[in-house]
Amino acid sequence: MRQITVGLLGCGTVGTGVARMLIENQALIRSRLGAELILKRIADIDIDADRGISLDPDLLTTDAFQVVSDPEIDVVIEMIGGQGIAKELILKAVENGKQVVTANKALLASQGRALFSAAAEKGVDLAFEASVGGCMPIIKTIREALVGNRIGAMTGILNGTCNYILSKITDDGSPFEVALAEAQAHGYAEADPTLDVEGLDTAHKLAILTALAYGMNINLEDIYVEGISKITPMDIEYAGQFGYRIKLLALGKPQANAVEARVHPTMIPFDNLLSNVNGTLNAISISGDAVGEILLNGHGAGMMPTASAVISDTVDLARNLLNDSSGRVPALAYQPDTIRELPVLPIDEVRTHYYFRFAAMDKPGVLSKISGILGDHGISLKSVHQKGRKLNASVPIVMLTHLAREADVRQALDQIAALDIVEDQPVLIRIEDDNNCD
Amino acid sequence: MRQITVGLLGCGTVGTGVARMLIENQALIRSRLGAELILKRIADIDIDADRGISLDPDLLTTDAFQVVSDPEIDVVIEMIGGQGIAKELILKAVENGKQVVTANKALLASQGRALFSAAAEKGVDLAFEASVGGCMPIIKTIREALVGNRIGAMTGILNGTCNYILSKITDDGSPFEVALAEAQAHGYAEADPTLDVEGLDTAHKLAILTALAYGMNINLEDIYVEGISKITPMDIEYAGQFGYRIKLLALGKPQANAVEARVHPTMIPFDNLLSNVNGTLNAISISGDAVGEILLNGHGAGMMPTASAVISDTVDLARNLLNDSSGRVPALAYQPDTIRELPVLPIDEVRTHYYFRFAAMDKPGVLSKISGILGDHGISLKSVHQKGRKLNASVPIVMLTHLAREADVRQALDQIAALDIVEDQPVLIRIEDDNNCD
Repeated sequence: MRQITVGLLGCGTVGTGVARMLIENQALIRSRLGAELILKRIADIDIDADRGISLDPDLLTTDAFQVVSDPEIDVVIEMIGGQGIAKELILKAVENGKQVVTANKALLASQGRALFSAAAEKGVDLAFEASVGGCMPIIKTIREALVGNRIGAMTGILNGTCNYILSKITDDGSPFEVALAEAQAHGYAEADPTLDVEGLDTAHKLAILTALAYGMNINLEDIYVEGISKITPMDIEYAGQFGYRIKLLALGKPQANAVEARVHPTMIPFDNLLSNVNGTLNAISISGDAVGEILLNGHGAGMMPTASAVISDTVDLARNLLNDSSGRVPALAYQPDTIRELPVLPIDEVRTHYYFRFAAMDKPGVLSKISGILGDHGISLKSVHQKGRKLNASVPIVMLTHLAREADVRQALDQIAALDIVEDQPVLIRIEDDNNCD
Repeated sequence: MRQITVGLLGCGTVGTGVARMLIENQALIRSRLGAELILKRIADIDIDADRGISLDPDLLTTDAFQVVSDPEIDVVIEMIGGQGIAKELILKAVENGKQVVTANKALLASQGRALFSAAAEKGVDLAFEASVGGCMPIIKTIREALVGNRIGAMTGILNGTCNYILSKITDDGSPFEVALAEAQAHGYAEADPTLDVEGLDTAHKLAILTALAYGMNINLEDIYVEGISKITPMDIEYAGQFGYRIKLLALGKPQANAVEARVHPTMIPFDNLLSNVNGTLNAISISGDAVGEILLNGHGAGMMPTASAVISDTVDLARNLLNDSSGRVPALAYQPDTIRELPVLPIDEVRTHYYFRFAAMDKPGVLSKISGILGDHGISLKSVHQKGRKLNASVPIVMLTHLAREADVRQALDQIAALDIVEDQPVLIRIEDDNNCD
């Protein structure tokens, strides 16, 4: 029986999950692949750690460069993460003609172009299903299942930490800081949670997905990113009263000669399945001209779910090796020579629906002043709610808008914020509502 | 640029959708595939029909056998359906070394073994993504994305007609017949709806999925099938009071040396995402030892969603042709020599939770008599509800059980049905509730 050999770089949480699957499900994988998939080398700086699985000590080395240069290794799995040594190792593996699997979204989103070019030039595959959405086959779905579709809007909950925190605030009414502390206590958030809660991790994933879906180069820099740290229980409660839940969404939408690509807290209606995706779960809805809309839901992170996606990629590459068909599916869904420079629409030019909350003095004329400024900027209101609850000396005024242009909204809010009858910065939360077309 | 040529057999609704995608999205497909995918021949008995798309008349022929024998055709797409001529044509195409795509679940579920053997022997691919779940990539997900997982339970809503009817009864309280008539008026149900509403179409799909997931031969005969025609608004209302919705589910579960494979109306709790999948939508939840659980949701039928899955398969086969890698992924997920004869657990041996409704005389001692018989058969009750509403001379008594064995349940219900204090046949609806373990 033919053998495909695997070298694993980095044996932390997910790396250990990958090793476990390769060892414990070896016979199962063989019965599906029709060849032996053999874990041959594991490189990690800590070779003595107890990883909870039984590993032949001969597998382990501290020298990752030895693994990527080992002529007996067919597939290199990079699980080190970060943008330093990981990039060097991937490039070296490619140079040595290895097939490569990675889950390194930060690296791909920032420097993917160089990596994919190097792999294409060398005729090897660089697979990255685990970089977005954990075990959900988002990349395979866009690249293969939707291959005949013009892909339209994509709406994703792609960060389990944020989804857990927002679910906690929604369920318990606890403030952001308390929900974050709980997420950290459960191991769902890092000690420094910035990358997750400020939306950058989601943006990394969206940069990859927009490239795959719209045939454009990966473009992280131009994605608008806003995190969840300013979301309050009060806004979540009001959202609920209007029939919305607040989720941190990754939004991709093709426009004429541009794409929208933005990450921000968003209100979505209860009847949208995404609004019922809670806790650490991820989900993504993808529309296409033929399919209408499909949705995937599952664990977006964690040891074994992420390992599952890595193994899926590894078996795919093994199948390519067994059939001498590397490059069978282009890495970024499109043939490299058809990939375009498609600009990301500046956030100022985005048109969407908005929720505003103002802390206004409880005085006559306040409402007319605020709505007057909004009207002056062409922002048309769908509903206005003056809430009874007093906040210090002010009352909350909540407004939902019809479609409005972000630049107009920002100018209007700046002007309103400068009024002496308004306390604090106005709150702005965008709304995605398919049932609400104007 | 290389060309892959396609012959389409059958140009009804879905066939027309396939032709439309091949023509209208040709440039898009080329930019992803890196080759021309060319619709070369269309065979249909009606070559003059107006299909709403512009077709070169030279493409059309009434002779399907000419298409499967045309040396210029690489991939044959069978969209005729049924188990007669379709099978003959597929076998002829295979014999001629063509790659084949079909959506013919009835044929595959009933006679798949012969077809897959013939294709494997000839070294060609027989692809069938569109046979289950329309545009949802269920087959690709099981076969490729979950390749490293031991697959556990599968729970699917796989028939849009039934889901539409059940959603209608739930929303409007209309009886089955009225909801069915509405489904027919909308084109969601056939004039003869038996195949859909009696669960057989769902069973065809489950037979395919269990083979793929558990590495067993396709086995339609032993799947337990019960349709939705006896579901009443009353039972749906009571289900709602207990926190459940009723869906027609396809259930697959591996057991020791057997699998459960059954299709029947089932109560599932509100917090199960499947309970929120309404109208004609399909969804499936698949569990695996690594992924935990993933869910796919989308249009399970219809012209363009089904065509999308057909195109996905066609491009997959084109990629195999371009890389000389036919057979790269085994048709039934497992290498043919590892596929087992795994029996389907007889319904009598299934253990699950039950909802019973009895129409009982409003007399003293009735409840003790019914619950006594259940107790004698080892069926332990979780809750008992005597409903106020009179039905003729009787009152509804509703009971929910702990885990019970189907054979015991049936014996007990037969005994209860024979009591003169009980009118009508008792109603039995099974419950799937992950939160309810005993």
